[in-house]
Amino acid sequence: MKYDVMIIGGGPAGLSAAIYAARGGLKTGLFEKGIIGGQITVTNDVENYPGFPEPLSGFELTERMRQQAEIYKAKFIDEEVTAIGMEGLCKIIETSENTYRTKSLIICTGAHPRLLNVPGEERFTGRGVSYCATCDGALYRDKVVAVVGGGDSAVEEALFLTRFAKKVYIIHRRDELRAQKIIQERALKNPKVEMVWDTVVQKIHGTEQLENLELYNRRTEKVSFLPVDGVFIYVGILPNNELLESRLELDSSGFVLTNENMHTNVPGIYAAGDIRHTPLRQVVTATSDGAIAAYSAEKWIMENYDDVIGVENNDNDEQ
Amino acid sequence: MKYDVMIIGGGPAGLSAAIYAARGGLKTGLFEKGIIGGQITVTNDVENYPGFPEPLSGFELTERMRQQAEIYKAKFIDEEVTAIGMEGLCKIIETSENTYRTKSLIICTGAHPRLLNVPGEERFTGRGVSYCATCDGALYRDKVVAVVGGGDSAVEEALFLTRFAKKVYIIHRRDELRAQKIIQERALKNPKVEMVWDTVVQKIHGTEQLENLELYNRRTEKVSFLPVDGVFIYVGILPNNELLESRLELDSSGFVLTNENMHTNVPGIYAAGDIRHTPLRQVVTATSDGAIAAYSAEKWIMENYDDVIGVENNDNDEQ
Repeated sequence: MKYDVMIIGGGPAGLSAAIYAARGGLKTGLFEKGIIGGQITVTNDVENYPGFPEPLSGFELTERMRQQAEIYKAKFIDEEVTAIGMEGLCKIIETSENTYRTKSLIICTGAHPRLLNVPGEERFTGRGVSYCATCDGALYRDKVVAVVGGGDSAVEEALFLTRFAKKVYIIHRRDELRAQKIIQERALKNPKVEMVWDTVVQKIHGTEQLENLELYNRRTEKVSFLPVDGVFIYVGILPNNELLESRLELDSSGFVLTNENMHTNVPGIYAAGDIRHTPLRQVVTATSDGAIAAYSAEKWIMENYDDVIGVENNDNDEQ
Repeated sequence: MKYDVMIIGGGPAGLSAAIYAARGGLKTGLFEKGIIGGQITVTNDVENYPGFPEPLSGFELTERMRQQAEIYKAKFIDEEVTAIGMEGLCKIIETSENTYRTKSLIICTGAHPRLLNVPGEERFTGRGVSYCATCDGALYRDKVVAVVGGGDSAVEEALFLTRFAKKVYIIHRRDELRAQKIIQERALKNPKVEMVWDTVVQKIHGTEQLENLELYNRRTEKVSFLPVDGVFIYVGILPNNELLESRLELDSSGFVLTNENMHTNVPGIYAAGDIRHTPLRQVVTATSDGAIAAYSAEKWIMENYDDVIGVENNDNDEQ
């Protein structure tokens, strides 16, 4: 089964790449094992994707993108990719059930926040537990929130949250921050920010919504309870890069390095969305990455192959 | 009148920057003289902005973005910017009516295609005359189209159009192409492509829709008529950079150079959308640029100022 473009991952980046590639007349396949939509599907209200003044759910937004890709005959393949190989310019995709060959490949496997892995965390995600202040901060106007973490992101997002929340606790397992000095200083002198040093969250309590955090002080060994309306967990973001061979250049955190055309260091392999080394991870940046990757893949195919298989052949798999 | 972020230009890049900046709690002003929405407002059917499986007009799409920015209290300023200056870190914006001061500035002034400047061109724009094959190519399945131009874009887009159209003429004023060799060769051997050398379009004819092109052969000095369903004009894209001072670094075509954070070479000045040196100019890439620029501006303000003016002060202009 041969394709012009294959895409691994069905979040906003992959769906946008599928819309652009298939609408551009390329035979396009998208692998997604399980639910289409990626991380954003768990978000109840997406307020900042441009074009939707009334918030919609992440599920609804990505479902709309899926429909759009189907209009142009992108093929959705519900199989798990187990390996990626090369044969000359051609890319070989192995799944548990089949082997596919494609001229170009777009990696959109995404990323996921590092979890605290404490009781209540999963249950209250989207109901008080958040991993994205840019996404959810505006929902906490005049509320009390906590940020867990001590790096740049944690402290920057805590400062960002002071614009909405009336009180922001920073809960950090050590007695000093890792964030850059200038940001630390601003946080420490901000009257809305209170540091909770040497402390970890060991349980998250609530009924319908998050109500309070059970804290453990590593120095005093005391347990205490902190009532908050929301907690933002910033203990790291991890790339979903298990599949990627050592041949793809990654940054020190394991995200894929690309140029502005989304091209990786391997000819004809692109990366788009959260898996990419990028300054901002939002639905709109992922969809833009996907569009650029598809556009670049198309130009690359034109330069390296005599023709395209074409979207008309998307119904006829067994060639 | 002081702002945290000011944005020049109300197309998709500027609107997205306004949504992100204002929703992020920054006092945000957007200058647009005339109609909000930018170039895309003339497009009848936007089919490839991810999230809208049913096409909508460019006007409707950007109107939705405008409403979204207003929800978060971005201020729209219907004044023409006449000059941009600096005073330390502060940016000074002069309009015909007022002077504004802002901590950060996002340039979203856009670009425009170079026109042929022939009779009928304006009248049939969106009704057969197009400047974007990626946008409109899919509308010409099994139709006859012409591309005007001889550079990389013209020839690449002509090849792209062969995937839809049954016939693609390339009309070029000279007797050889400027496009890179490999692309030229593919075009010349493609059976759907026919070259029309030494020729310029001197008039565009039709009734409701474009019907034919009046051609003038510069060598033979003969006039002829070519019936087509669509014509794609690729004779260049020009940045709207009249305002930009010599201090902003531009590429050789006059587009603004930025890093991946959309930062220009001047501290606190960002560029987003079509005005930027970028591999692809689409609504989705512009909105992504705008979001990244606003996010970066916010981080920059946090590092360089003690606090933000804040969105609450957006109603109270006279401070």
